Amino acid sequence: MAEVLKGAPVVKALSERMIRDVEELRSQGIYPTIAILRVGDRHDDVSYENSAIKRCHAVGVRVVTLTLPADARQDEFDRALSSLNNDPGVHGILMFMPLPEQLDAERARMLLSPEKDVDGITDRSLSGVFTSTDKGFPSCTAQATMEMLHFYNIDIARKKAAIIGRSLVIGRPVAMMLMHENATVVNCHTSTENIPEITREADILIVACGQLHFVGPEFTNPDQVIIDIGTDWDPETEKISGDVDFDRVEPVVRAISPVPGGVGRITTCVLVSHVIEAARRYAKKQPLYTDATK
Amino acid sequence: MAEVLKGAPVVKALSERMIRDVEELRSQGIYPTIAILRVGDRHDDVSYENSAIKRCHAVGVRVVTLTLPADARQDEFDRALSSLNNDPGVHGILMFMPLPEQLDAERARMLLSPEKDVDGITDRSLSGVFTSTDKGFPSCTAQATMEMLHFYNIDIARKKAAIIGRSLVIGRPVAMMLMHENATVVNCHTSTENIPEITREADILIVACGQLHFVGPEFTNPDQVIIDIGTDWDPETEKISGDVDFDRVEPVVRAISPVPGGVGRITTCVLVSHVIEAARRYAKKQPLYTDATK
Repeated sequence: MAEVLKGAPVVKALSERMIRDVEELRSQGIYPTIAILRVGDRHDDVSYENSAIKRCHAVGVRVVTLTLPADARQDEFDRALSSLNNDPGVHGILMFMPLPEQLDAERARMLLSPEKDVDGITDRSLSGVFTSTDKGFPSCTAQATMEMLHFYNIDIARKKAAIIGRSLVIGRPVAMMLMHENATVVNCHTSTENIPEITREADILIVACGQLHFVGPEFTNPDQVIIDIGTDWDPETEKISGDVDFDRVEPVVRAISPVPGGVGRITTCVLVSHVIEAARRYAKKQPLYTDATK
Repeated sequence: MAEVLKGAPVVKALSERMIRDVEELRSQGIYPTIAILRVGDRHDDVSYENSAIKRCHAVGVRVVTLTLPADARQDEFDRALSSLNNDPGVHGILMFMPLPEQLDAERARMLLSPEKDVDGITDRSLSGVFTSTDKGFPSCTAQATMEMLHFYNIDIARKKAAIIGRSLVIGRPVAMMLMHENATVVNCHTSTENIPEITREADILIVACGQLHFVGPEFTNPDQVIIDIGTDWDPETEKISGDVDFDRVEPVVRAISPVPGGVGRITTCVLVSHVIEAARRYAKKQPLYTDATK
């Protein structure tokens, strides 16, 4: 029987810390604020927006939403984003992707102020993850994975980690973050031969391949810690399930995160923590701004 | 007896291609030009500058050098870099690092125009390598490693690659580039336990740990291809040698690059190819610029 690494206790601990951080910033006159920029009314976006708003309000972070019609023109979108970039009362901007076809996503990404890029999509953020420097912000899901490992005191340094997946939001950033904490990391992907042979050697296995129950017991070893990032639709149970076949794997490994109720739950929490961090960086810079405008 | 992967034939092939590329650009009225910005007269910088100039002239790329005294002030340096950024006749800028202590290296890196960043140090370039998109330019040594593998037709897709090192100029970018070409990649480093056990499994071994003759036969297997990026001083022979103990390893592997005469030789060649590519991107954008200034 494995230890089940639930997301809820991690969320609780992060939230308590965030409440204290927000209070401290408020005492300095800084009110951490996120702006959510959404084009159209896609169901997934609206649902993520609602859960982000709820999480923000729970810790005292203010939310501004700016919604454009699905057929918004480029100049309209640019103006909206620029106004949020230039608003000193907004510390973080969440911009829903993908944008509708008529809008240039790369242009939007380049326009977004790196200081407010709490979702980690600008060059500054990506370069920061790649170089392990504290510049922008890492992808929220990647950091949620690390928060889970840290919360449950999973040893990382000098350990072997395998990641199934090489995406920009999980596979690659988690590899960089684990390597920065001195793990030896291998990314497996669609062109990797004999994945179970590689993952069996790993002390930590991160699964983010987006395939329902891809990982069975043959991928694991009894001392392994598994973090499952998958959120796949299971047509049999008609419920969301993970990339790991939990029922078969849980009995034979040391620890495993469930889906749902695992990393996914931590992700919006990390987003809010980025807004607070952006506000903190802004607060630190304030004396400089004041000097410059004298 | 291994195949010895020499740098010279790679340089020859790249140079022939570059001469054709430069001719084509010249026929469009574009003269590919690199600006070299150097502060002080450090011996290594001057020697690299000289070999870069020679390589540029060999393929018809123009060189502008801008040299500041070792005690240059920040505003002086900023002005010099800005003038090169703004000069439409300059397509690439090589800025020697590290800068003297009184200058802010991070500020310089942020100031450098990403379009002209032929040495791959800006956020745009680093993010481009991390995301495997063709935005900036990868580090020259990392790309030189890939050019060598390509020239000698070493299979990469579906192969296992091990890298000893995790630096920003080799270990990390080469990992991303190999993974982009569908290898399964592991980075070993100072916190990796039992490195030989890991590297023995690799079809391709990239060594960039900066330790003289670190890799002996016990790190290898008979089918392995080794690229040695080390340039270490050997006090015994009083010559430059590699991270691999060539004399002991060469007899027991499939292929190996020598030091000197291996990847190092390709590096300045790649730098020049980046200048040509920057000029080509500039040429492509030209009609747009013309429209915008109407």
